[in-house]
Amino acid sequence: MAGSPDQAATLTHATAAIISVGDELSLGQTINTNSRWLANRLTDSGIITAAHVTVPDDQPALSAAISRLTTAADLVLVTGGLGPTADDLTRPALAQAMEDPLVEDPLALSQVEAWFAAANRAMPEINKLQALRPSRATTLPNLNGTAPGLHARVGDADVFCLPGPPREMIPMFEAQVLPRLHPPKDRTVRTRVLHSIGLGESDLATRLGKLMDRGPQSGVLVGTTASGGIVSVRVRYEGPLPPIDADAQVERTLREVRTLAGPYIFGTDNDTLAGVVLNTLRERGERVGVVESCTGGLLSSLITEVPGSSMSYAGGLITYSNSLKQTLAGVDAALLGPAPEAPGAVSREVAVAMATGGLGRLQVDHCLAVTGIAGPGGAVPAQADRPAKPVGTVFIARCSRLFSQGKKTTDVRQFLMKGDRHSIQDWSAKTALAMLRLHLVGAEDLKLLRQVS
Amino acid sequence: MAGSPDQAATLTHATAAIISVGDELSLGQTINTNSRWLANRLTDSGIITAAHVTVPDDQPALSAAISRLTTAADLVLVTGGLGPTADDLTRPALAQAMEDPLVEDPLALSQVEAWFAAANRAMPEINKLQALRPSRATTLPNLNGTAPGLHARVGDADVFCLPGPPREMIPMFEAQVLPRLHPPKDRTVRTRVLHSIGLGESDLATRLGKLMDRGPQSGVLVGTTASGGIVSVRVRYEGPLPPIDADAQVERTLREVRTLAGPYIFGTDNDTLAGVVLNTLRERGERVGVVESCTGGLLSSLITEVPGSSMSYAGGLITYSNSLKQTLAGVDAALLGPAPEAPGAVSREVAVAMATGGLGRLQVDHCLAVTGIAGPGGAVPAQADRPAKPVGTVFIARCSRLFSQGKKTTDVRQFLMKGDRHSIQDWSAKTALAMLRLHLVGAEDLKLLRQVS
Repeated sequence: MAGSPDQAATLTHATAAIISVGDELSLGQTINTNSRWLANRLTDSGIITAAHVTVPDDQPALSAAISRLTTAADLVLVTGGLGPTADDLTRPALAQAMEDPLVEDPLALSQVEAWFAAANRAMPEINKLQALRPSRATTLPNLNGTAPGLHARVGDADVFCLPGPPREMIPMFEAQVLPRLHPPKDRTVRTRVLHSIGLGESDLATRLGKLMDRGPQSGVLVGTTASGGIVSVRVRYEGPLPPIDADAQVERTLREVRTLAGPYIFGTDNDTLAGVVLNTLRERGERVGVVESCTGGLLSSLITEVPGSSMSYAGGLITYSNSLKQTLAGVDAALLGPAPEAPGAVSREVAVAMATGGLGRLQVDHCLAVTGIAGPGGAVPAQADRPAKPVGTVFIARCSRLFSQGKKTTDVRQFLMKGDRHSIQDWSAKTALAMLRLHLVGAEDLKLLRQVS
Repeated sequence: MAGSPDQAATLTHATAAIISVGDELSLGQTINTNSRWLANRLTDSGIITAAHVTVPDDQPALSAAISRLTTAADLVLVTGGLGPTADDLTRPALAQAMEDPLVEDPLALSQVEAWFAAANRAMPEINKLQALRPSRATTLPNLNGTAPGLHARVGDADVFCLPGPPREMIPMFEAQVLPRLHPPKDRTVRTRVLHSIGLGESDLATRLGKLMDRGPQSGVLVGTTASGGIVSVRVRYEGPLPPIDADAQVERTLREVRTLAGPYIFGTDNDTLAGVVLNTLRERGERVGVVESCTGGLLSSLITEVPGSSMSYAGGLITYSNSLKQTLAGVDAALLGPAPEAPGAVSREVAVAMATGGLGRLQVDHCLAVTGIAGPGGAVPAQADRPAKPVGTVFIARCSRLFSQGKKTTDVRQFLMKGDRHSIQDWSAKTALAMLRLHLVGAEDLKLLRQVS
């Protein structure tokens, strides 16, 4: 272990750079999720990510990026290129940047062999390559795959090379990298996020007004980001305050944002809209079900991606075809057509019938129903006395049992969603959850973005 | 218009750099989808993306990145930071890099006003900022939002600044940027991708063997990438050949890959597994339905995100609770428990009962059913003569009508999926589609990755 990075003098990691490796990333065939995840974890730890760089599967380019960024940052994280195939070039690129030969690491080799043995598979010969490391680097064990990680000191920076697949990279970062990080002790960084739905980004920014003015003297920076119908407000402190004062400053700003934005704010930090709704239902001992047409399972999927959702979610009906709207949800055939006076599958009446039908058939306390035109086809032209239904027309209904009175309450709204098929499905599913949330917090009079009536 | 970039001498755009702007990106709070999408479109056009850089909402940092990358690449695309709020700094950063004052663009202002008028909303005062541009830049109209884009010549590079939201950025790139690009005429770039499911990445690489060896003399580069259960094989040519010969070389390599990988390959380029399955069903005039437990709607969602899926998809049952497995899918209560000899909700027997029940109730030709333990809770310990069911245990059944004989065929398989809740749900949904595809192409004997029995 002589000369290994863990025995070198401890560095302070004030700034980081993240290098993502892979033709599939640089050419745009795969989305980069690792770099975002790592930056988030570093920010949480008080280390500022000053640069994200993506390079192709090209040894000289990667080696040059490592050399350049190790002079610019204290910490360089490299993801990808540790696989067993000929286009995995992170090991030789690191060796080149270190001017250090590759050697086989017997311990790493035995770990790769053990991984295959545990999976009841023979180790392909090419996986032997994964046990190579620069002679002055150390390997990091991988409990979730074959690729060992690497840790090396290059110049005055620590370099960690991690595998590309997130299910391998994330546990390795948590177990092997995080304990070796040394954020600066004289700087406090705090980032908190509030999430809202139902208000446009400009409208929210107008409400926040002066809170968003920038300037180094302000201490706390407030910014907004819109993504898939959710507008998030970031509140960030970076400076010399002791942690407890920094927390207090950030908390005060969070309260100001909540006051200005009102019930449109549904959660903080890692909260998801579905997670918040499910928490409230669990506290109330109530269950929800869904009847989906144009969202085609996405609403149910948003709910069930939350761990423990089965406590408050019973299930759903995907009534994609008109005949299943009748047989599964009990929608009256006369509502669906073909008579010219029938409201049709995409209508206020059918949304309500789906929600009330689902309430009984799924045996739940609340039922959300979505019917609409996700496109690109399916727009309904204007007829006689009936207006056109363009792509993006969506009706969402919520039906709930009123326990005290043995009755039901229903809320149905018409929206005109924007964007492509995926955006329309995504906004519709989230807006359905937003309608249930407004009901649960008693703010049903609030109008939601894109709502027509 | 004197001095506008569109009147300057035409540049050849051989290399590009993409700058993504936003604290939410650099700090890791939001995933960067734009940079991937843009690189993909540039690659298709024959322009190589040599660098992707992400910078925070910081005017000097963004201005410096624009200055640096305009000396390194012929084309710089900037996304984000064009919103109306105080943390949107792309306009002043571009002006700083150009050493050019910001001026108000009357045409752009009228377009922003018109956008709000069309949405029946009053224009907030702050949106006026969006009509500012450096005096030597031109604005690009935005038909899908308030932020106009910018086009400027900086040094010997063309710079285009596009809004961050993909539904605004993508149409602006297609309509305003693409027609202004000039890829080199003496270089041919071709990238094709084949997608596989059911084989591990190392196993696939072993099958491809020498095809994956790298070297500038090889002409065609072959690489693999694994993402969410799909292993993709990229075949890429870059060099001086005329387009027709480059296409022929790439096509020959694609045929070799198909021969070596066999029926595990399900599609090419932008094909999705669901899209390929739906195409085959449409050609055969057949329809599929789903009964989902642990995937909770994700399988249905993968199917319905394909435009036109309603032609071959009827709908589904999300039988998340045990009681809905009985009432909706007709699963025999005795199979679900509580008797110790009952196989339980996560079992071969219940998967088959869900699939056969769904075949009838959804009135479809094929039904896919998924039941399993997505975790993190829910693992079943070993009991008496019954082995444990750890998190990741998933049973998938397919039931199909055999038209010629009025009978049904059933295929049921047990898997042990890896990773977190989301990975288990995602792999399970895709594996269900893979089982239907194997049936449709007559390769049902093929064993799939993670299959236990």
